[in-house]
Amino acid sequence: MQDGTLLAAVDLGSNSFRLEIGRLDHGHIHRVEYLKETVRQGGGLDEDRNLTPEAMQRGWDCLARFAERLAGFAPERVRAVATQTLREARNREDFIRRGGEILGFPIDVVSGPEEARLIYQGVSRLLPQSDERRLVVDIGGRSTELVLGRQFTPGAVASFRLGSVAWSARYFADGSFTREAFQAAEVAAQAVLDEAAQMFCREAWDVAYGSSGTMGAVGTVLAAAGHGEGVITRDGLDWLLDQLLHARHADRVRLEGLKEDRRPVIGGGVSIVRALFDLLDIEQMAVAQGALRQGALYDLLEREQPGADLRSATVRALMQRFAVDEAHAARVAHSAGRLFDGAAPPRSEEAARQLQWAACLHEVGCRISHGDYHRHGAYIIEHADAAGFAQPELHALGLLVLGHRGKPRKLEAALDNPVLALQLMCLRTAVALCHARRDPDVDGLSLRLDGQRCTVRARPGWAAAYPQSAHLLREEAQAWHKTAWEYVAELQ
Amino acid sequence: MQDGTLLAAVDLGSNSFRLEIGRLDHGHIHRVEYLKETVRQGGGLDEDRNLTPEAMQRGWDCLARFAERLAGFAPERVRAVATQTLREARNREDFIRRGGEILGFPIDVVSGPEEARLIYQGVSRLLPQSDERRLVVDIGGRSTELVLGRQFTPGAVASFRLGSVAWSARYFADGSFTREAFQAAEVAAQAVLDEAAQMFCREAWDVAYGSSGTMGAVGTVLAAAGHGEGVITRDGLDWLLDQLLHARHADRVRLEGLKEDRRPVIGGGVSIVRALFDLLDIEQMAVAQGALRQGALYDLLEREQPGADLRSATVRALMQRFAVDEAHAARVAHSAGRLFDGAAPPRSEEAARQLQWAACLHEVGCRISHGDYHRHGAYIIEHADAAGFAQPELHALGLLVLGHRGKPRKLEAALDNPVLALQLMCLRTAVALCHARRDPDVDGLSLRLDGQRCTVRARPGWAAAYPQSAHLLREEAQAWHKTAWEYVAELQ
Repeated sequence: MQDGTLLAAVDLGSNSFRLEIGRLDHGHIHRVEYLKETVRQGGGLDEDRNLTPEAMQRGWDCLARFAERLAGFAPERVRAVATQTLREARNREDFIRRGGEILGFPIDVVSGPEEARLIYQGVSRLLPQSDERRLVVDIGGRSTELVLGRQFTPGAVASFRLGSVAWSARYFADGSFTREAFQAAEVAAQAVLDEAAQMFCREAWDVAYGSSGTMGAVGTVLAAAGHGEGVITRDGLDWLLDQLLHARHADRVRLEGLKEDRRPVIGGGVSIVRALFDLLDIEQMAVAQGALRQGALYDLLEREQPGADLRSATVRALMQRFAVDEAHAARVAHSAGRLFDGAAPPRSEEAARQLQWAACLHEVGCRISHGDYHRHGAYIIEHADAAGFAQPELHALGLLVLGHRGKPRKLEAALDNPVLALQLMCLRTAVALCHARRDPDVDGLSLRLDGQRCTVRARPGWAAAYPQSAHLLREEAQAWHKTAWEYVAELQ
Repeated sequence: MQDGTLLAAVDLGSNSFRLEIGRLDHGHIHRVEYLKETVRQGGGLDEDRNLTPEAMQRGWDCLARFAERLAGFAPERVRAVATQTLREARNREDFIRRGGEILGFPIDVVSGPEEARLIYQGVSRLLPQSDERRLVVDIGGRSTELVLGRQFTPGAVASFRLGSVAWSARYFADGSFTREAFQAAEVAAQAVLDEAAQMFCREAWDVAYGSSGTMGAVGTVLAAAGHGEGVITRDGLDWLLDQLLHARHADRVRLEGLKEDRRPVIGGGVSIVRALFDLLDIEQMAVAQGALRQGALYDLLEREQPGADLRSATVRALMQRFAVDEAHAARVAHSAGRLFDGAAPPRSEEAARQLQWAACLHEVGCRISHGDYHRHGAYIIEHADAAGFAQPELHALGLLVLGHRGKPRKLEAALDNPVLALQLMCLRTAVALCHARRDPDVDGLSLRLDGQRCTVRARPGWAAAYPQSAHLLREEAQAWHKTAWEYVAELQ
């Protein structure tokens, strides 16, 4: 990527939506513009975990404003990331589909661990180089992420369902600040976080950093009151609690440095910070500048570097975690890649990579059971913690794995996408060729897509030399019946 | 189990339903009665993989006749096992529910690998003791099982979707026996079986055995014609193929020893036998006496022996396969067991075991992702190859794992079962107590179920000593709202 390139990240958080635009300069990304709107969508989930129409509309209105600023950006230069509220919302598809149209770029709902990883990237990129072992904490509106890491590399990650918006609604519903309410909120927070106590214990890190909204607000207030500059301490937190108790109600809180939009959620936020300090024996925590949105920007940068695509490493890790037969996966990936490279467009570098990953993972479900392993594989891929992947990417991979066996028509509307159809034809053909779990003679074959018709041709003698493979390719033609696609095996 | 005890197994196969009643005598089970009816349900799947009403009725009628013979048997003395046709049928629940009522005993649909394991048990129990490495092949109506094993212990198992009924319908649809039809059927069979070639290759076993319908029929015909006594050879298979080609049509086949009900499916069966002989380099195969139904009988016997319950070993294997935190699983299992033992009935030895297994597996889904791990765990358990378990048992385990987190009411009608409700209360309470992943103080607690009301009581001081645990138990009371059950935490 050239110096001077503009990159943009949108963070659709539970409390605020943020837009960050940066310019690339010698491997660093410098801020060009930053917009933040307090949409507080996390407070807009109803009893059935549906986003209310009002919360949707507030989100869309904000995205429309961001869209004006993003007009003209190339798709591969923008990443829009949604987190806990949209992870939870049952009707998220409604919001995301229209939201993506309004924004002009697709919105990726990322998993909690993936969010944690991006946060660590954002935080570490904006810190001075150092070999210290870091704990990074991000208390969001509805989720809290903990990460251990060193340099630019995150290690253990965890994501918990508690945050400033959710905890304020639950333990400070009427806005009253009493000692009992804070005690209940802290006990409840510790009960949720307790299982992290071991993994993130004091011995596991050297320096603690707090990222994003709640931590930033607490840090600013403490600094304004003279309790450390950019550092949150236990004494500072005790002082802050006293101030809140003294005010007795959120509406009456007057603290220098506390922004208006933060006041309604400061009670929940502070109780979570205090619970974390207690649980993890934190003496002090530095306020970090970087956050999720910077992590998303640097992620865009890394994906472009050949060999540095984190997603390839993630696929290898998944293969190991589920004990995939690597030799067979490589065999299918090689054959599928050969067919894909030889096919006419529609093709793209990204689609070719995706096909390789699908081939690598096509048997991942065998760890659960050989019966219906394609379904289990799709389930695993759609639900796995897969660093670097957004949910829609995992969904596309899952579809390829699901569709590689049995009838393709079960993929239904997804088959309307010609790239996916071509990927699937290549993958299925490769799997058929490798049915004996030996390297196939793929040199004798070509696959071409003309319109809706895919033709597989073999050199003379191929079908006689490999009768089982020929049988399976002829069966493949039947498998595509009742779809919009035709698969023709010309094997004589 | 006492000598003289009668045990019964029902095998709901794709071609025939069979009833075997045996009497226990010094660890052996001797036949008391054997009934077989050619229901040929496997031919009764329509285009959408639904059992036709006629195929259902044929099955129910047969089960009604078996039920007369089984009247008075205790539930733990009878095992009814269904295989490929019911694995495939979309409307299997309709058949199984009414079928179980008619039979008077529940019908277990077992997975392909579990079927293979039971077949090996049946075959090995009826063979002379020997240390030979065995290959056991069972060609059923719609599935074919391959097993390697030694003594009474199965090793590698595999189950493939091809069988005598399915292959006859597909490659000999009009009953004509031509050389081309046999060639196509054999090529297709090899294409399906090819991936087994390595695992079951000639070097992996010393003696090959063929079990059940197709193998028995082929063996009988060859023996009657003087081609070996109870042994199938390549020469014999060549002779048999010649006979079939000579007859030119299934209806005209006249072979001594071939039963009338076997004739319509002999073409498909013979082509699969021939494909297997070629693929695995089999020179000869002995016809085995034992089969699935004997395996099911010996399985009933083993379950009764403490420490010999295969299901416990399977749970341990699943824990390993999915890298469960064993210390935490043991902690939760211990706490749940203590609570369950102290609770008033409804209880049973089987329910206590099931609770232990659920506790051992409650985090098995973390291998996929920590987010929603209870759902992933339920998915894994319901779909895993789990030796010794039938599908309904796995379903019950899956429900406990699914329900151990979040709202219990998602289990819906399953909560009407008071045993499951009590198990779930014990499991959820144990998980709450172990939230910090440390051994909890469970001695200070008791759990009692009176009617629909569950009360957890703590000794004085317990709640003050463990405020997070107390918080979680009080939250548990809310979790049971909107169910028929009440959960009361009396912690003062």
